Amino acid sequence: MVQIDAGHFSLNASVELSEALAKPASYKLMYFQMLSNGATGRDLLAFGGVDWSSVAPANWNAEKGQTPFHLMPLLFITGENGKTATLAETVVIEYYLAKKFGLLGTNEYEESVIKMLHSSSAAVQNAFAGAVTWNAPEAKAGGLGFFTTATLPTWIATHERHLNDNGNNGHYLGDKLSLADIRTANAIEHFATQPESAALMAIVNKSLPLIKLRETVAKHPKMVQWRSGNEYKGYYEGNIAFFADPFAFMS
Amino acid sequence: MVQIDAGHFSLNASVELSEALAKPASYKLMYFQMLSNGATGRDLLAFGGVDWSSVAPANWNAEKGQTPFHLMPLLFITGENGKTATLAETVVIEYYLAKKFGLLGTNEYEESVIKMLHSSSAAVQNAFAGAVTWNAPEAKAGGLGFFTTATLPTWIATHERHLNDNGNNGHYLGDKLSLADIRTANAIEHFATQPESAALMAIVNKSLPLIKLRETVAKHPKMVQWRSGNEYKGYYEGNIAFFADPFAFMS
Repeated sequence: MVQIDAGHFSLNASVELSEALAKPASYKLMYFQMLSNGATGRDLLAFGGVDWSSVAPANWNAEKGQTPFHLMPLLFITGENGKTATLAETVVIEYYLAKKFGLLGTNEYEESVIKMLHSSSAAVQNAFAGAVTWNAPEAKAGGLGFFTTATLPTWIATHERHLNDNGNNGHYLGDKLSLADIRTANAIEHFATQPESAALMAIVNKSLPLIKLRETVAKHPKMVQWRSGNEYKGYYEGNIAFFADPFAFMS
Repeated sequence: MVQIDAGHFSLNASVELSEALAKPASYKLMYFQMLSNGATGRDLLAFGGVDWSSVAPANWNAEKGQTPFHLMPLLFITGENGKTATLAETVVIEYYLAKKFGLLGTNEYEESVIKMLHSSSAAVQNAFAGAVTWNAPEAKAGGLGFFTTATLPTWIATHERHLNDNGNNGHYLGDKLSLADIRTANAIEHFATQPESAALMAIVNKSLPLIKLRETVAKHPKMVQWRSGNEYKGYYEGNIAFFADPFAFMS
C-alpha cells in the first residue's frame, strides 16, 4: 500500500525534503512482487546495507492514482528530520541510490561513463518490452525476430567492447562494483526469466564478457546475502509468473 | 562525421576528461538532421548561449561502429584544457547540459522533481516509438489504439496535475524554465510531426496546461531566437520527412 498520497509533488516543502534526501534514515521501495524495474533498486539498497524494506500495492488499480505518474517503482525516503520524500522513475531512483552508496566512480567522467552504460542496459530491456512483452499477439514473433537479430546483438557487441577495454574482469570500470554492473546484470536476469528466455539466453550466453559480469555481480558478498534469501527468490519466481502472461496481470 | 573515434571510453584519461566536463569551452552535438532525440540537447545548447554546433553523420552505417552504442545523439565536449569528452545516451547528455545551464531548480528535491518529469516525458515519446513508429506494419494500428487510449491520456492526466499544482503558468516549477519544461515541449513537438499527428494532437490539444507549457517554452526569448532560424526549421521539416517512412531511412 502507498504510505502517503504521493501523487502530488510537495514543492513548497522542497527545503525539508532536500534535507531528507541528503540525510536519509530509512527507505521503502514500492513495486510489484517481481524483479523487472524494481530489481536494480532493491539490489542497490541491499548493497548499501541501510534500513530498507520492500512494499507491494494491495490493489494497484485503486492505488495508482496516488502516484506521480501511475507507475512504479517508487522510492520513499524518510530523512533524519522525519520528512518523507518520494522518488519516481527508475533512472532517478537508481542514480540517487548509486550516488549514496558510492557506485558512480571517482570523478565526473567515470560517473558519466557508468551512467551511459546503465542507460544503454535499461534501454535494451525497455526495447524488449516494447517489441515483445507488450506487443500485440500477432506482432510478437516479428518483434522477437528483430530484437534477437538486431537490438540484442548490437547491445552485446558494444558492451563486450567496453568490458574488453577493462580487461574482462567482470566490471566495466576498474575492479569495483558500479551501478552499470548491477544494471546490466539485471537486464540479463530479466531475459533469463522471460517466456522467450531460451532464445534470448542462447545469444547472451555466447558472450563470455557478459557471463563474467553477471557472475561477478551475483558473487559479490552483499548480493549473495540478499539474493539467497526467500524474499529475492519470491521476486525471481514472481518475474517468471508475471511475464508468462503479462496482459492477464494488468487487466 | 565523427570527429574522433568515440567507440571506446577513455578511462585512463578520466581526470583530464573530468576537467573538460567541468570547464567546457565548446560543444558539438551529433545527430540526424531532425528533431526527435536530438531536439532537447540542441534546445539546451541554444538556451545556454555557448559555443556549439550541430553535426550529422555523412554515412551513419559506416560511422556508427565508432560510437559507444551505435546510437546517437552524441555530445562532444571540448574543455579549456583542449581534451574532448564524448557523452552518449540522451539522459546523460540532457542532465549534463541542464546542470551546466541552471535548469535543474535550486535544491536536491527540486532537481529530483524536474528529472522525474523529464524522464516521464522521454518515456511517453519512447513508448510511441515502440508501439507505432518501429512496430510491424500489421501491428501499428493496434499500437496506436493502445497509445491514444491508455499511454497518452495517462501521461497527460498526470502531467496536468503537476502543472495545475504550479498554477498553470506554463512551467512545472515556479516561474522559471527547467529541463522538464523543455523536454515535455519536445515530446509534443515530436507528436506534432508524426504521420499520426492528427490523432495525437487532437488529444494533446484538449489539455490547456500542456498547450500553455508548449507555448511558454516556444516563446522564451532564447528559444524564439534559435527556433526561428533556418537550421531549426530544417530539423523540423527533417522530422516530418523521416517519420513519414522511418524504415526507408534506416535501410
